[in-house]
Amino acid sequence: MTAHEKFMRMAIALSRQNVEQGAGGPFGAVIVKNGKVVAQSANQVVAENDPTAHAEISAIRLACKQLGVYDLNGCTIYTSCEPCPMCLGAIYWAKLDAVYYANSKIDASSIGFDDNFIYEELGKQFHQRRVKMVQLLRNEALVAFKLWKDSESKTGY
Amino acid sequence: MTAHEKFMRMAIALSRQNVEQGAGGPFGAVIVKNGKVVAQSANQVVAENDPTAHAEISAIRLACKQLGVYDLNGCTIYTSCEPCPMCLGAIYWAKLDAVYYANSKIDASSIGFDDNFIYEELGKQFHQRRVKMVQLLRNEALVAFKLWKDSESKTGY
Repeated sequence: MTAHEKFMRMAIALSRQNVEQGAGGPFGAVIVKNGKVVAQSANQVVAENDPTAHAEISAIRLACKQLGVYDLNGCTIYTSCEPCPMCLGAIYWAKLDAVYYANSKIDASSIGFDDNFIYEELGKQFHQRRVKMVQLLRNEALVAFKLWKDSESKTGY
Repeated sequence: MTAHEKFMRMAIALSRQNVEQGAGGPFGAVIVKNGKVVAQSANQVVAENDPTAHAEISAIRLACKQLGVYDLNGCTIYTSCEPCPMCLGAIYWAKLDAVYYANSKIDASSIGFDDNFIYEELGKQFHQRRVKMVQLLRNEALVAFKLWKDSESKTGY
């Protein structure tokens, strides 16, 4: 068994236990740095009343807390399912090196999760999306962007 | 001033204060239900060491905590910038009714944020993405999906 398989089996075990224990959806994620697990989580949406508490988001938040950073450069995530757009976005923001996944977004769709639908929505023009999107007061908001651009004391991320 | 403009100006004020106070990036979000504000947040990535703590994600988490739900059906989000893929994904999972935004993802790119880059990455095939993606052990992970599908006591979300 390779190290990749070992960590993926941990993520899969989390996904399975979550269902068996009635705690939440069948998803688990493990974050590894230098061959050591730094964080792991199952999906906690229902348990925590938090629609953002997918396994990957929760594991990223825990790993950052554990390491005292907001940048997981040098880390790899093992997730029992291909990340949804929310989680893949978080993976980019967190600057993880690599994603190992097991089930696909199509597998997730087949058991009732919206992962693939959301990927399709993100590729659409605003007026074609299910959620209503309206632009408003851009000129006023640009003032804050200019403040940021001109700031010499900012911490980029 | 319309109600939409009033709530957007609150989001813009949060974005501006965040820069002025040196607390973080120029982003703010407000969530409204039945004409009342239920949650508001600025970007807290650096302040909280949490790469997922964008204004929208933080506001969604606060609104769910405030209302004791994981579904924000009936709510509208006002955000000072077009949501990135992570936040737009969260908006779909949270089932918000509508998104009012001010600055665009292109405006965000122009001051150094990766929003537009991440949108482009999500549309690419896996081997073309900057982050390495590898599928592994799907057959083992499908067992948890089957458990979920067959479970009669699950709480869907």
